[in-house]
Amino acid sequence: MTAPSQSAFSVVALAGGVGGARLVDGLDRALPPGSLTVVVNTGDDFQHWGLHISPDLDTVMYTLAGLSPEDRGWGIAGDTFHVLEEAKRRGVDEWFQLGDRDLVTHLSRSGALARGVSLTRVTAELCETLGVERPILPMTDAPRPTSIVTQAGKELVFQEWLVKARAAPAVREVRHQGTDQTTHAVLAALTAADLVVICPSNPYVSIDPILKLAGISEAVRNAKAIAVSPIISGAAVKGPLATMIPEIAGRDASAEAVATHYDGLLDGYAVHTGDAFDAPYPLLETNILIQSKEDRVVFARELIDFARSLR
Amino acid sequence: MTAPSQSAFSVVALAGGVGGARLVDGLDRALPPGSLTVVVNTGDDFQHWGLHISPDLDTVMYTLAGLSPEDRGWGIAGDTFHVLEEAKRRGVDEWFQLGDRDLVTHLSRSGALARGVSLTRVTAELCETLGVERPILPMTDAPRPTSIVTQAGKELVFQEWLVKARAAPAVREVRHQGTDQTTHAVLAALTAADLVVICPSNPYVSIDPILKLAGISEAVRNAKAIAVSPIISGAAVKGPLATMIPEIAGRDASAEAVATHYDGLLDGYAVHTGDAFDAPYPLLETNILIQSKEDRVVFARELIDFARSLR
Repeated sequence: MTAPSQSAFSVVALAGGVGGARLVDGLDRALPPGSLTVVVNTGDDFQHWGLHISPDLDTVMYTLAGLSPEDRGWGIAGDTFHVLEEAKRRGVDEWFQLGDRDLVTHLSRSGALARGVSLTRVTAELCETLGVERPILPMTDAPRPTSIVTQAGKELVFQEWLVKARAAPAVREVRHQGTDQTTHAVLAALTAADLVVICPSNPYVSIDPILKLAGISEAVRNAKAIAVSPIISGAAVKGPLATMIPEIAGRDASAEAVATHYDGLLDGYAVHTGDAFDAPYPLLETNILIQSKEDRVVFARELIDFARSLR
Repeated sequence: MTAPSQSAFSVVALAGGVGGARLVDGLDRALPPGSLTVVVNTGDDFQHWGLHISPDLDTVMYTLAGLSPEDRGWGIAGDTFHVLEEAKRRGVDEWFQLGDRDLVTHLSRSGALARGVSLTRVTAELCETLGVERPILPMTDAPRPTSIVTQAGKELVFQEWLVKARAAPAVREVRHQGTDQTTHAVLAALTAADLVVICPSNPYVSIDPILKLAGISEAVRNAKAIAVSPIISGAAVKGPLATMIPEIAGRDASAEAVATHYDGLLDGYAVHTGDAFDAPYPLLETNILIQSKEDRVVFARELIDFARSLR
């Protein structure tokens, strides 16, 4: 083991699913070993078939392991679906797509949690078996389910709203139930961070669940913090955010609307070319569409330079 | 729905895994609809990968569904092992063989149990999706784990002894932990039974767990009861019984040794040709090796005729 050759510059990324995972993948390759820690939303975690499923942890982990498919935001590239096909054959509830290789993650995690191992430790073990070396920390070890209250007044567990109801019911409110405690590992990483990056994830259902845990928004406010807009030219790259902003904030979806949501937390903000607005902090206006692996690392380098330039 | 045309003759079979399942399959086809209920050992149930696995319930269920392989005592014929292969690839604990189609059973069961559904009800639902119409009742809804105390004084959960340790450690004692309560469904079936059949399963680890629940041996004693020997010419058709009898009972393995174990319960006993002994009740001496589907139903008919002939 050799110590990082560059001056230590520790970065904590707060991430949800696909958008977050892609930026994390870029940061992973742009930063020297030992400098990146990822804190991941677990508000989407749910029980399915008796298993503990952590969609965002898995997306981040599979992306860093190089296992994510290019063409969809979940699961493992080239996975088979023999278990799911049998479930369909038997008429078992199969709304959530689980691949055969992917299932091993949920089985291992569920087995370990049932033996009393913490989600933080389980995640570290899963990362080790998948060859992922960056620390990936769940935002909390205790249940903190996100739920969606629809305009019709119905409350749905997040994944049921997103996947089963295809994010169709209009949203009145996002709720965070369960614990408000994060872990020592997360607080320690944030306290030591030279930079906090809020990834281009959904602010309401991916980032807020993290920020609303006790001590986290204070730690972000005390750190140098930047965000990357999850909105490009009024549209979300992926997911239901573009319709959620008008429903929840009563304004059109825009990079600025997301920045307003993070009011008081940011020291800088990255927006897509053409999305600049009059902001109380520096903006990085560039190509933030980072679907390819190359775009991810190019943007990550630009973002780190931008962050280093901030006072 | 039409009522059974034959005079009602209700049979309750007490069964463990493969041997029990094969006789149950014969009885299933020899008896008119509505007359057979199967009470199955759950002492082998265990947690693996966070799932609730019920090996004997599954073997009976798959056998009655026509899904069991001819060449092994577990799982579904023609199943694939993509999940298991991934587990091996990742170095995850994979000593218990789980097929992809088979997994759907464990996932469905575990999911339902986690929602508070009883094992009895879960089993009925699984049977329904698999097209099994005979009632299959777990011996209890609560945990009742069988453990093996080895001659070396080590206590192992049954499946770990059987599968992981390949039944190699010599047995000093079999223990039954947890609840001693059966279910209303089991007691009601036994009370209404015209005949109780103790299947050719291991008396120590398949049948005793059932008999030792409160009220069951009394109900069997009060009913007309017969057993089928799991020992043929001193050998067990399958499993570790032939070595367990000398270790536990201090005598050679034989049909008679098993009968002695059931002392006071039986009104008749079926043994293989050549295995007859001087018994205090009638013996049926015939071909009891029932590996083929044809042999199973031929023997089941013979067994029912024998039972009807008993006073």
